[in-house]
Amino acid sequence: MIKARVTVTLKNGVLDPQGKAIKGGLGALGFEGVESVRQGKVFDLSVAGDDAKAAEKSISNMCEKLLANTVIENYSVEIL
Amino acid sequence: MIKARVTVTLKNGVLDPQGKAIKGGLGALGFEGVESVRQGKVFDLSVAGDDAKAAEKSISNMCEKLLANTVIENYSVEIL
Repeated sequence: MIKARVTVTLKNGVLDPQGKAIKGGLGALGFEGVESVRQGKVFDLSVAGDDAKAAEKSISNMCEKLLANTVIENYSVEIL
Repeated sequence: MIKARVTVTLKNGVLDPQGKAIKGGLGALGFEGVESVRQGKVFDLSVAGDDAKAAEKSISNMCEKLLANTVIENYSVEIL
């Protein structure tokens, strides 16, 4: 079994109102000096098999098709 | 300026219906062998200053107070 972590983040230039709201919330709680917050998603996957190379390719495919919206998001796959 | 990445994941044992739905979606798209999917969140922060130690402490504090629900979520802070 192979474990992998997929991290999906917004591309530069894409507005992130959720991140902005979090930044505002941190300010309201008294945290100073927070210059920016961008929120993304992380997926922890377990995949059958033991071929890390094949798993990475398959997971990249999953990102293209479902996990990430490649118009506005970047993704990275890390085999753990 | 210090950049950091906060990763927030559900604790073991906490149900993740969203992850389950994604697993089902991957199966429906023909991806075989996906044994589990757990979804989490990632926050990319920029914080003023250049004291990485202090920033890490401050960000851990932000996690405790706002970014993570420590009853059901774990968090990790990584200074980039």
